[in-house]
Amino acid sequence: MIGGMTATHTDGAVASEPAPRHPLAVASLIEKHAATIAKADAAIADRGYWSHFPESPSPKVYGETAAADGQAAFETYLGGRFPLEQPGATGWVATERSPFGVALGVEYPHSDVETLVTAATAAMPAWRDAGPDARTAVCVEILTRIHEHVFELANAVQFTTGQAFVMAFQAGGPHALDRALESVAYAHTEMKRHPATADWEKPAGKGDPLRMSKTFHVVPRGIGLVIGCNTFPTWNSYPGLFASLATGNAVIVKPHPLAVLPLAITVKYAREVLAEAGFDPDLVQLAPEAEGEKIASTLALRPEVKIVDFTGSTQYGDWLEQNAHQASVYTEKAGVNTIVVDSTDDFVGMCRNVAFSLTLYSGQMCTTPQNILVPRDGIDTESGHIGFDEVAAGIAGAVAKLVGDDARAVELTGAIVNDGVVSRIGAARSHGEVLLDSREVKHPAFPDAVVRTPLILKQDSANEGMFDSEWFGPISFVVATDSTAQSLEIFRRIVGKKGALTAAVYSTDESVLDAMEDATLDVGVHLSCNLTGGVFVNQSAAFSDFHASGANAAANSALTDGAYVSNRFRIVQSRRHI
Amino acid sequence: MIGGMTATHTDGAVASEPAPRHPLAVASLIEKHAATIAKADAAIADRGYWSHFPESPSPKVYGETAAADGQAAFETYLGGRFPLEQPGATGWVATERSPFGVALGVEYPHSDVETLVTAATAAMPAWRDAGPDARTAVCVEILTRIHEHVFELANAVQFTTGQAFVMAFQAGGPHALDRALESVAYAHTEMKRHPATADWEKPAGKGDPLRMSKTFHVVPRGIGLVIGCNTFPTWNSYPGLFASLATGNAVIVKPHPLAVLPLAITVKYAREVLAEAGFDPDLVQLAPEAEGEKIASTLALRPEVKIVDFTGSTQYGDWLEQNAHQASVYTEKAGVNTIVVDSTDDFVGMCRNVAFSLTLYSGQMCTTPQNILVPRDGIDTESGHIGFDEVAAGIAGAVAKLVGDDARAVELTGAIVNDGVVSRIGAARSHGEVLLDSREVKHPAFPDAVVRTPLILKQDSANEGMFDSEWFGPISFVVATDSTAQSLEIFRRIVGKKGALTAAVYSTDESVLDAMEDATLDVGVHLSCNLTGGVFVNQSAAFSDFHASGANAAANSALTDGAYVSNRFRIVQSRRHI
Repeated sequence: MIGGMTATHTDGAVASEPAPRHPLAVASLIEKHAATIAKADAAIADRGYWSHFPESPSPKVYGETAAADGQAAFETYLGGRFPLEQPGATGWVATERSPFGVALGVEYPHSDVETLVTAATAAMPAWRDAGPDARTAVCVEILTRIHEHVFELANAVQFTTGQAFVMAFQAGGPHALDRALESVAYAHTEMKRHPATADWEKPAGKGDPLRMSKTFHVVPRGIGLVIGCNTFPTWNSYPGLFASLATGNAVIVKPHPLAVLPLAITVKYAREVLAEAGFDPDLVQLAPEAEGEKIASTLALRPEVKIVDFTGSTQYGDWLEQNAHQASVYTEKAGVNTIVVDSTDDFVGMCRNVAFSLTLYSGQMCTTPQNILVPRDGIDTESGHIGFDEVAAGIAGAVAKLVGDDARAVELTGAIVNDGVVSRIGAARSHGEVLLDSREVKHPAFPDAVVRTPLILKQDSANEGMFDSEWFGPISFVVATDSTAQSLEIFRRIVGKKGALTAAVYSTDESVLDAMEDATLDVGVHLSCNLTGGVFVNQSAAFSDFHASGANAAANSALTDGAYVSNRFRIVQSRRHI
Repeated sequence: MIGGMTATHTDGAVASEPAPRHPLAVASLIEKHAATIAKADAAIADRGYWSHFPESPSPKVYGETAAADGQAAFETYLGGRFPLEQPGATGWVATERSPFGVALGVEYPHSDVETLVTAATAAMPAWRDAGPDARTAVCVEILTRIHEHVFELANAVQFTTGQAFVMAFQAGGPHALDRALESVAYAHTEMKRHPATADWEKPAGKGDPLRMSKTFHVVPRGIGLVIGCNTFPTWNSYPGLFASLATGNAVIVKPHPLAVLPLAITVKYAREVLAEAGFDPDLVQLAPEAEGEKIASTLALRPEVKIVDFTGSTQYGDWLEQNAHQASVYTEKAGVNTIVVDSTDDFVGMCRNVAFSLTLYSGQMCTTPQNILVPRDGIDTESGHIGFDEVAAGIAGAVAKLVGDDARAVELTGAIVNDGVVSRIGAARSHGEVLLDSREVKHPAFPDAVVRTPLILKQDSANEGMFDSEWFGPISFVVATDSTAQSLEIFRRIVGKKGALTAAVYSTDESVLDAMEDATLDVGVHLSCNLTGGVFVNQSAAFSDFHASGANAAANSALTDGAYVSNRFRIVQSRRHI
């Protein structure tokens, strides 16, 4: 806590002393970002298209030198000690290994858990007392600061996750920042749902009415722990991180050991803005993990930790849900994303659309489809009825076409995030008849990059055990079913049990679309219908689409909605007679 | 599910077929209750005084025959089988014993868990598909129906809980109904936060924009389990019950074995209204417990149960939080409610106000103060400085005065809810110097009623172990502390660890009020300042005061706020190109 600053950060009020030791006056930040928050609120309320952070990395948008400057800034981090002044750093850890095979060698300061927790706890009261408007504005300022360094961040995302550059830029930068802004806007609305003060006057028969003045304070839950993942270190972490911070909590960010840099950069700029605005930078701390340390588990069970956000394996997510009793735990875990193919009036468009989703980032998105359920008797198309094998060949062929040229392929596939995915591709080959084999691709720019194209297998509905669990990576199954009715049964059964983040259906029959929509309501998964153009089942748009539903086993919450933010703070009231 | 009715209950739409088989058209219920919902929303938003259900049992409000009619209706239940037609009832259970010593002998139908769960699950889809407006209106209609029988309910509350009649009427009837309406209004707002449909249009450079139509469905989590308590069977159960029901879940109500009748009456009228409105009455089912059955634990661990609401012991609440992993668990548990006395300008008013809170319902409210921390050097008052013993004697004397006359005493104290409280009074006597002893009172109207007046003990801050846990019942400690500063330290330490639902402070010094308010923010408990008149620390007003905060060990949520309702449903979307 920065002593004596509390009074200067009360919502809307600027105290005359002590003089700010920093260049960012909170009152002017509130003014600066008010319109952005209002626009975000409006977008959330009507769920039409809106974006605050431009997704195109074009020089026309970001300026001629932005890309080169960002790359240079990224490169200054490599092979050195990351500039982060955190309390009680006792050593340095370096755990990253780039999927592109380039040397990273960044060392991060390592603090012990006790020091992190103590510093986070001390930082909170002044942040709490600053109030919702001040915290919201400071959070948007942090997002703005990160955005000023978005190419630096994009490089960090690219080289830790294996995403191709454009995707690393978009998903890791503007899309992640938009999702963060969305969660901050939800949090702001939720915190401002009740007035800060109220007068209460109850009639008392013939006597004077009872009159009370009431004050309602928004108080944080405690420390928020954010456990990052390997594939989307920023996109999946930002909503929880900024929702917790905006609602008054201090946040400890535990990155995946293989994707530290994007979150280290995030923490760096967050601390910078917090300090400039007169708050304790220890409101946001990085907790990189030493080899075998299991620091996430240690932190998750600390009594001071009241919120945990996690993206990763079902096993660890379940462990958190079942053991971090003292905390509200938000998890995104494994699932079995499914497409039901019944019929189409644009077979080529369907195949191209599905193929893109299977290929993008080598199928390493939590939203990538895995199972494609097709009647074994085939489907009706604009060119008449075609057989199952033709459907399967159409999809496999579209993927083959996308990845046919190495140089173009790698711009879609990126690289394989870690060794587990490579070995899973090998193991999957025996789980069906190979329709399209995965092949190794030589990356033209990064000779040591590990690149694999999608593996597509043919299976039969009789062998449900072969495809009823998640095969994370570029692995998918085209499954022959008895009928669309059976496809729906399989969809309900597998997703009902294992969960999913996405579902899609292709049909020209309204009753099939309705039946599929009914099924998605029952198993709680978002549905995309007849995507044949430029929208893909594995992509969700901030402010309009919900990501995950929290209604099935793949995630216990949505990123983001009211439920995602409302338990990150509490209201404490006081009342006295007037 | 009542077959084929789904289409008739879509929000705002009235289908032309099939013809309703029931007298309550959902569309007209929506119209009927719209103004009430709007008023509730407005009250929540400004948190001024508002009440929908009149709290006075006067004949001027309810009519000359209401009280007698209600009592007669109550009496028809006694010694017989409660009229509730639930699926698969295999036997009858009778477990109640009135604190007033009157024979109840009501038998309730007992179904097995499998039957209850199956029926609840089958009932949900049509209720889900009816939409937020329909469900909200039906819930308000249920509250209205219950209110039409509020004297019948009040008698049931009185004779199962031991509350005196006026309190049983107010807390068990209108106040409980107001809290239920509050939670339904919160739920309605939360469900309607996003539009049901939206058009999304994303610019795509020089090409046509991407256009999609999106639909957002509110879906229930699953079955809500409500576990009632002995002391406030309706007040503490209604917010969770109606929040879960309004958000689309089916609810299974498990009453406390000693307070079944108030919830049986509730379930009866809920089922009646649901059936009349064309929904499956099994959306609300009663699960009375056979001796030693532990049906609550069996239900709480069922995978279909996704929401649990519980009021009761810390031990069982903790067990639920740590074991019902599949569910969102809302608990209200034990706490150590505390008053810090620093100074006052109305000593008599203070003593009278505190005495009333200690005496009301024999201190058996979860909000009753237990520890009264007073500096051992005494306090400043309007008549100058007075010693600790004088303060203690003032409070004890005010209680003694309130309970001096048996006939008047019982109208405040009611009866002792169960044997545990009686033995706790005995055990407490050795935990301090007796300032005012508890005495047995002969109830003028109910000779077998178990009535005890409050026990007030003197303790010293040096013996913190004597008063640092909850002593549920009419047991309180006036504790001599080194100073108000030490009082605040003790308050922070005990409430920080054990939690509390209420806190109060008496001081004429603004800096002490501020320091206490700071302390309440840190330990997360609601504060009442200088209550000397007709408002009491143990009473909270619906639509204005929050009950519990969810920010300390005494409860993990507030009844009610946004966080209390937002996790009771999920949003599932579908999207397709326009």
